[in-house]
Amino acid sequence: MRFLARVLVITGLLLASLGAGLAEPLASWNDGPAKQTIQSFVQRVTDAKGKDFVPPEQRIAVFDNDGTLWVEQPMYTQLAFALDRIKALAPDHPEWQSNPRLKAAIDGDMKALAATGEKGLVELMMVTHAGMTPDDFQSIVSDWLAKAEHPRFKKHYTDLVYQPMLELLGYLRDNGFTTYIVSGGGIEFMRPWTDKAYGVLPAQVVGSSIKTKFEMVDGKPVLMRLPEVNFVDDGPGKPIGINQHIGQRPIAAFGNSDGDLEMLQWTTAGDGARLGMIVHHTDAEREYAYDRDSTFGRLDKAMDMAPAQGWVLIDMKNDWKQIFPAAQ
Amino acid sequence: MRFLARVLVITGLLLASLGAGLAEPLASWNDGPAKQTIQSFVQRVTDAKGKDFVPPEQRIAVFDNDGTLWVEQPMYTQLAFALDRIKALAPDHPEWQSNPRLKAAIDGDMKALAATGEKGLVELMMVTHAGMTPDDFQSIVSDWLAKAEHPRFKKHYTDLVYQPMLELLGYLRDNGFTTYIVSGGGIEFMRPWTDKAYGVLPAQVVGSSIKTKFEMVDGKPVLMRLPEVNFVDDGPGKPIGINQHIGQRPIAAFGNSDGDLEMLQWTTAGDGARLGMIVHHTDAEREYAYDRDSTFGRLDKAMDMAPAQGWVLIDMKNDWKQIFPAAQ
Repeated sequence: MRFLARVLVITGLLLASLGAGLAEPLASWNDGPAKQTIQSFVQRVTDAKGKDFVPPEQRIAVFDNDGTLWVEQPMYTQLAFALDRIKALAPDHPEWQSNPRLKAAIDGDMKALAATGEKGLVELMMVTHAGMTPDDFQSIVSDWLAKAEHPRFKKHYTDLVYQPMLELLGYLRDNGFTTYIVSGGGIEFMRPWTDKAYGVLPAQVVGSSIKTKFEMVDGKPVLMRLPEVNFVDDGPGKPIGINQHIGQRPIAAFGNSDGDLEMLQWTTAGDGARLGMIVHHTDAEREYAYDRDSTFGRLDKAMDMAPAQGWVLIDMKNDWKQIFPAAQ
Repeated sequence: MRFLARVLVITGLLLASLGAGLAEPLASWNDGPAKQTIQSFVQRVTDAKGKDFVPPEQRIAVFDNDGTLWVEQPMYTQLAFALDRIKALAPDHPEWQSNPRLKAAIDGDMKALAATGEKGLVELMMVTHAGMTPDDFQSIVSDWLAKAEHPRFKKHYTDLVYQPMLELLGYLRDNGFTTYIVSGGGIEFMRPWTDKAYGVLPAQVVGSSIKTKFEMVDGKPVLMRLPEVNFVDDGPGKPIGINQHIGQRPIAAFGNSDGDLEMLQWTTAGDGARLGMIVHHTDAEREYAYDRDSTFGRLDKAMDMAPAQGWVLIDMKNDWKQIFPAAQ
């Protein structure tokens, strides 16, 4: 490391410890096994003299998004977006009325839509997510998020992020980690708001994607979103997406459903100190209580495997003092 | 921005200015239009009071690799690797001898190989680059780079990086830029060594890729490289790869061939201050002189378009005091 870089890192670490002394990290976490697991792991990998020390450039932490960083009930936010969007676009597309899958979506008939299976969902995504530039899509998403309200909490979706997880993201970054989102959700659905909501820059978001095409339009270079699946960043896709985007195996992974199983396996199978944690939704009063039987965010196999794998469950009801950030 | 982060950034900037005062930046660049273009651009986008100011998180600079950061003659280094590799593997694969395309590669018969066209090259890449885990592939690459020598310069390939470009990468980073490689070369061929050679971390490397598969082998999660093209990060693929990996439009792009044309267009078509530069290989004595007629790194259309697009050519012979780093 060059001298200047070394000075910067040392200064940063000094200031970070100073900062850590000023504000209690993980303030919304109750003292308990989950908080202790996190603190002990961070202590071990940052102790330059310890056997588990990990240099900062290898301190990669990956986070699922839906149900891990923000609410995913009563349905994924991106699905709520797609349903609002298809309703808004429907008047210009009378031909959609003769397609039973799209008609179910337009009518908001969730039972009929669910009955169409994956085909109906993919079709809904394609007609609402393709046919515009990434910039235009991001504007559409931002405009929607600024207006849409969660049906139960009557708040904007970006206000329904988990305060304890925000503190965890910050705590890890203050300790030299780079924090990534690795989500089954659309990469370009997330990128417009993850920096503001989580401090996660666009380049640190990994997600599912549709294909894009480069073309010249009126002498200007344009990217166009195509109605064709490019990559599904879920289940076994998560380690593949991590390998493709990050190119390093994470040392810590946080998820909440069976869609995070392979990411947890991939992360914790590496050598040295590893951390795998699962947010368990146990709080019907303040948020939701669900696991094995949920349509969205089903947690079944990963929960069975957790003890043997050393993955620690975060019990939302007992581990978290507060669920959402205080209203501003 | 939180207070602590702000303090860190300000401290960093102060120390960086201090550092800039100690060592002459761009020391291997002759004073001339190329160096002036770079310095003036950096001055404009970092001047917090100027109209062209760009906040640090948007200071994204992208660099082609072959011919822009290191030597690409007499052939791409990755092709030299593939030819050495197929020779090493051939004894275990007698069946390759009956395939004229692979036989040409094994025999090092470049004329016959070239005559097989893209099909032969893709086949060569698949048999030498697939069938192992990413970790194993990176070890194979690292071992090869530690031994292989460039046929003319008799040095390791990683010693044949361009000293002025190393200084440029550092100068941009010292000024708050994030530097990315965006190369037609294989993403996992580059990642093992770009941090050491260029200070570019694996997550900041964008390149071509083959598909990978996640599987459990003897109870352990494994990624396996498949003989199937996933993404070609060249020409129109470069803006697509940038959008996919970085999710932001760069404000500066550096290339050297027509394969960088769309990346230059995409970068410089954005609003505000933009920089597009092309390394022009004009120095047959110290390196190579080639452009319109070269098999590797052909520079033709992009050179014709440069004046109207405001892209500035870097004249290797006249702009660079030194080509390669001094021997250590």
